[in-house]
Amino acid sequence: MRTTASWQADGPASTADGPASTLRRTPLKRRDLRPDDLAVRVDYCGVCHTDLHAVQARDDGQPLVPGHEFTGVVTETGPEVTGFAVGDAVAVGNIVDSCGTCAMCRADQENFCHAFPTLTYGGVDRHDGSTTQGGYSREYVVRADFAYPLPPGLDPAAAAPLLCAGITVWEPLRALDVGPGARVAVAGLGGLGHLAVKIAVALGAETSVISRSRDKADDAHRLGAHEVIVSTDPDQMAAARDRFDVVIDTIAAPHDLGPYLRVVAMDGTLSHLGHLGPVTLETTDLLIGRKRLSSAGSGGRPATAAMLAFCAEHGITADIEVLPSARVNEALDRLRRNDVRYRFVLDLSDLD
Amino acid sequence: MRTTASWQADGPASTADGPASTLRRTPLKRRDLRPDDLAVRVDYCGVCHTDLHAVQARDDGQPLVPGHEFTGVVTETGPEVTGFAVGDAVAVGNIVDSCGTCAMCRADQENFCHAFPTLTYGGVDRHDGSTTQGGYSREYVVRADFAYPLPPGLDPAAAAPLLCAGITVWEPLRALDVGPGARVAVAGLGGLGHLAVKIAVALGAETSVISRSRDKADDAHRLGAHEVIVSTDPDQMAAARDRFDVVIDTIAAPHDLGPYLRVVAMDGTLSHLGHLGPVTLETTDLLIGRKRLSSAGSGGRPATAAMLAFCAEHGITADIEVLPSARVNEALDRLRRNDVRYRFVLDLSDLD
Repeated sequence: MRTTASWQADGPASTADGPASTLRRTPLKRRDLRPDDLAVRVDYCGVCHTDLHAVQARDDGQPLVPGHEFTGVVTETGPEVTGFAVGDAVAVGNIVDSCGTCAMCRADQENFCHAFPTLTYGGVDRHDGSTTQGGYSREYVVRADFAYPLPPGLDPAAAAPLLCAGITVWEPLRALDVGPGARVAVAGLGGLGHLAVKIAVALGAETSVISRSRDKADDAHRLGAHEVIVSTDPDQMAAARDRFDVVIDTIAAPHDLGPYLRVVAMDGTLSHLGHLGPVTLETTDLLIGRKRLSSAGSGGRPATAAMLAFCAEHGITADIEVLPSARVNEALDRLRRNDVRYRFVLDLSDLD
Repeated sequence: MRTTASWQADGPASTADGPASTLRRTPLKRRDLRPDDLAVRVDYCGVCHTDLHAVQARDDGQPLVPGHEFTGVVTETGPEVTGFAVGDAVAVGNIVDSCGTCAMCRADQENFCHAFPTLTYGGVDRHDGSTTQGGYSREYVVRADFAYPLPPGLDPAAAAPLLCAGITVWEPLRALDVGPGARVAVAGLGGLGHLAVKIAVALGAETSVISRSRDKADDAHRLGAHEVIVSTDPDQMAAARDRFDVVIDTIAAPHDLGPYLRVVAMDGTLSHLGHLGPVTLETTDLLIGRKRLSSAGSGGRPATAAMLAFCAEHGITADIEVLPSARVNEALDRLRRNDVRYRFVLDLSDLD
């Protein structure tokens, strides 16, 4: 085993004061490299809503190191690794392994692996049964097949969020054939939403942002949106009825899907990405206009590589606020209050 | 006004014994023909689940004549009517008018009229504000634009259910591009389901039926299905995972959508048709495999005409049990117990 430094939740899961969301600097064991592994020095790791949920929902007292969108540099390669060399800039997302043999893996959709993909943290390693620990750490050991060369020209800090937020919005935009002339609305302008706007615009779509207020209107236009619709204004929502081929719903809290389905065009799709969990909807909101509700999460390996190439070609990265990793608890706390435009990225160099 | 005979619920909505679902023979006023109206002698009217719900849910004590899928013969035409003559065989479905000016009407989707289409019964007439009354009656007066010539060769009794059940399954099958090679499953083999099987098979799809038991397996194969999957057998459902491009869900009661979403192929669609009302689902059932949930109901005028032409070309009508209309209460009671293969049709000639 090898040892690195990490930001870890390892105390009681909760206290009398509520959930214990404090991460503490803790040494972390990493496995010795298998023949097809890379060791990666983690330089930058994005702070995803999933991380916040994982820390808050932690109820088993087991150690947890979050982080599943990170970039860094290869420091060591296993003997069977081809395609990567020490010193290469790489990126890793929220999946680090899959069965490789099921129909979904064969269809290049490892994210839907029937045997469940190995998650970057909180997953179960397919070989040694250990619990995976994430990228809020200075080193990660990953199967090379699930690392991606970071294309030249992409800032490694601002590119880190592409590996989760980016691929999460890329997948539905591509699956729904968004291209020139498509009418796209992005509901919620946060970590996912701001990347959805940039990518939809770069794909050639007429892109609108649906937001609770006009507070982010200037940002939306700067990101390339052609229009901002205020969701709390019934007149604006009514005027948008049946208008969008695709609505990318990135709102990170439970909410009524009805108003967002009503702005979907006939045979169009609401892709519900921002909040996992049960949803309840009125069948008539789907029926009237033959609307479709879908979701997506992560992506397969070729799609992830294609997304990175597209972002490099179009100069797309996340709008980020970089913090030294020692300020991780502040980042989580501010994320909980939606106080970030639009993604925190931890600089892990302070762990050296 | 003109007077015809009808089967009407017009007493108290409920009694101490439960809902009063008894229809009684009652004279019914019809409007005098407007310039663009037809008078239709109703010969056959299908008995739809919606009729049952309407009778059971009736809570206002107002008179109700159900029936929104019927065939008959034109007996009189308004002076502006073209395209119909006295003696023509016609069919009428569940929509008898719409605003004609909104985006949906202009897109030939009167069923999604933004000002709400006028329903064949229980609707509000756009001109005189009266409540519409349905086809469990010997005469109906309808705007000619919402009557369809009944193609030669279609049995008028067995064709009646095409006007609601038929178009309800036709619309999603066509909207989802079902054609040769498509993999379609029909869940629930009733009034909607048996027509979905016939139409999907005629469209060239590999068609499976998902049913709670093998009781209807022989029927399913006779209707053209290639396979029957028993939904209560976990092994059979697991073997069907991710298999169908389109699942037409015609189950007429609230049910868990999860098992049906899991047999949808990646980027495929579950079209939820059989039961209106709120549905709750797990986002992950959409996320894993990028499944889509949709619905549909009725169709626009060109689609309805196209469906009738397709059914005539392929010899498709409903499998029916014809009862004299005097036995309407028996039909509703047996429908409530799912005791029909697969659609009751009332013969209204006994109202003369």
